Amino acid sequence: MSLSETALPFDDIRNLVKSMPGPDEEALGKVKARDAELTKPAGSLGRLEEIAEWLAAWSGKAPPKITRPLVAIFATAHGVADEGVSAFPSAVNRQMVENFAAGGAAINQLCRAYDIGLKVFDLAVDMPTPSITKEDAMDEANCAATMAYGMEALAGGIDLICLGEMGIGNTTVAAAVLNGLFGGKAEDWIGRGTGVDDEGLARKRAAVETAIARLNGEKDPLEVLRKIGGREIAAMAGLIIAARLQRVPVIVDGFVTTAAAAVVYAMDPSGLDHCLFAHVSAEQAHARVLEHMGKDALFDFGMRLGEGSGAALAAGIAKAAAEMHSGMATFADAGVAGKS
Amino acid sequence: MSLSETALPFDDIRNLVKSMPGPDEEALGKVKARDAELTKPAGSLGRLEEIAEWLAAWSGKAPPKITRPLVAIFATAHGVADEGVSAFPSAVNRQMVENFAAGGAAINQLCRAYDIGLKVFDLAVDMPTPSITKEDAMDEANCAATMAYGMEALAGGIDLICLGEMGIGNTTVAAAVLNGLFGGKAEDWIGRGTGVDDEGLARKRAAVETAIARLNGEKDPLEVLRKIGGREIAAMAGLIIAARLQRVPVIVDGFVTTAAAAVVYAMDPSGLDHCLFAHVSAEQAHARVLEHMGKDALFDFGMRLGEGSGAALAAGIAKAAAEMHSGMATFADAGVAGKS
Repeated sequence: MSLSETALPFDDIRNLVKSMPGPDEEALGKVKARDAELTKPAGSLGRLEEIAEWLAAWSGKAPPKITRPLVAIFATAHGVADEGVSAFPSAVNRQMVENFAAGGAAINQLCRAYDIGLKVFDLAVDMPTPSITKEDAMDEANCAATMAYGMEALAGGIDLICLGEMGIGNTTVAAAVLNGLFGGKAEDWIGRGTGVDDEGLARKRAAVETAIARLNGEKDPLEVLRKIGGREIAAMAGLIIAARLQRVPVIVDGFVTTAAAAVVYAMDPSGLDHCLFAHVSAEQAHARVLEHMGKDALFDFGMRLGEGSGAALAAGIAKAAAEMHSGMATFADAGVAGKS
Repeated sequence: MSLSETALPFDDIRNLVKSMPGPDEEALGKVKARDAELTKPAGSLGRLEEIAEWLAAWSGKAPPKITRPLVAIFATAHGVADEGVSAFPSAVNRQMVENFAAGGAAINQLCRAYDIGLKVFDLAVDMPTPSITKEDAMDEANCAATMAYGMEALAGGIDLICLGEMGIGNTTVAAAVLNGLFGGKAEDWIGRGTGVDDEGLARKRAAVETAIARLNGEKDPLEVLRKIGGREIAAMAGLIIAARLQRVPVIVDGFVTTAAAAVVYAMDPSGLDHCLFAHVSAEQAHARVLEHMGKDALFDFGMRLGEGSGAALAAGIAKAAAEMHSGMATFADAGVAGKS
């Protein structure tokens, strides 16, 4: 009997999802009431006001406060990368982990610019998961343990978590997960990733089709995740669930992080209400999955890097939204006349 | 003979516009070359890469560097505000200038969050210009002097300038200027501003129609500005011109600041190439004027506050784009494998 046949670890995760709390209505109400008194026309800060409300609703703090924001990058390796689905070799995984440590990657500059912490979680970056075209990426125990590992990113009083990832081949794996969860055809979910050519794109489609065939109609989100997913997607799905339970708002980055969010969504469509979707990625299927889940991203800068880069930009905006709400004077404080 | 009949000051400004330089191709080339070497797939940072290039092209610095960014708020008062075109009384102008000084406004929090300087320029906030429905807002000498005053916002080594404004009634004045410059009907250019009701909107339309009738077909951009504009629009138009001459990139905010930009555009359609349009305002005519001038805004957060609030958010993004470009490691530096 393999560990996966015990079915216990996934049931633990299913139970966690069932116990996820709703918004903190009291904190939300306080923010709405204060917002109406601030020295500006009602509604004139648009999405910034909504972000302040969202932070309060999902952190339980009014006024909202972001003091320990973190970008968590989950790095791993994928067997499918050996099948010519990416423009870059898998050696880049370890090299980029070292680049993160040395401060040379894009995400390092963004985190410094916005005073956001950065942690890189090495999910066996030198030991790829089996190719999803050939066998399951993880067994149940391993998948559940990886999800639990992702939950640890919240340690130390983190009060805003940004999802990031690094893993050559992971837009192929993310496409497979989304195809498994939401149906449609492989070409609906694939894209050029880091910049694959037409032949690579054809190999990517073939890989997703083979993985989906191997899935054999399995629809359970956690089974889809473990069979045709990857470790970074598992860790981020676990982190999203833990953040909800621990009242930490989540900022989702691009295509691969959204695939992790989609696993939670497929278990509970309200399970992403504590998540802000930072941006629409240039990876073509990202807009499709956002639309499928009814999520509006904050901006569209044509980015497709990963590393949590879009999420970090959105965190910079969320920090400003929180400071604005808490720091502004009210009409009464400032002696400013209200609407006539 | 009034000062305006000498026609000299406006000719000085026309000459300045004619002498505006193009992009610094050398700095631009350097940024493009370095960008291609940075540890990321080519093009994967989308608009952030374009912003780094834009900063280099219009500052002449490669790598681009933002060390003294400033939000300049031009505050003034408009006679037309007495005609029921705004939801707020003109007394708010002085009160908000005091709120800026006390640090209680939205823009104060944004500038603190992104470490951007803030200066408020009081353009006779207690002495409204004549109502544009009745007489010219400014004579030529006064308008030219106000434009020259706006140019002074660059003093002290400012290397990124964000346009901001405050002035009850100024969405009416901006609508009149845009209607005068670009034609169409008054209703094409008006909107609810700070939140005027249907009756107020009707008064706004009537005010713009009366101003346009009084303009009597005058098409010269500077004449449109002085006759049916306002002091903050004049000061910001002057500042946009001076910034181009002094190689300082400009970030334009919302509807009223874009009306100032439109005056420069009407004098020279390439005259805004050094300007980044931060956001699409919720003021309904803003999208129209951006489209008319062929400008893509960076984001759309449904904001309509003014004060340079959208420009400050964009400056936070531009700072990050500059830091990313200058701080990232190259493939060679980091020993990361390139595209295969």
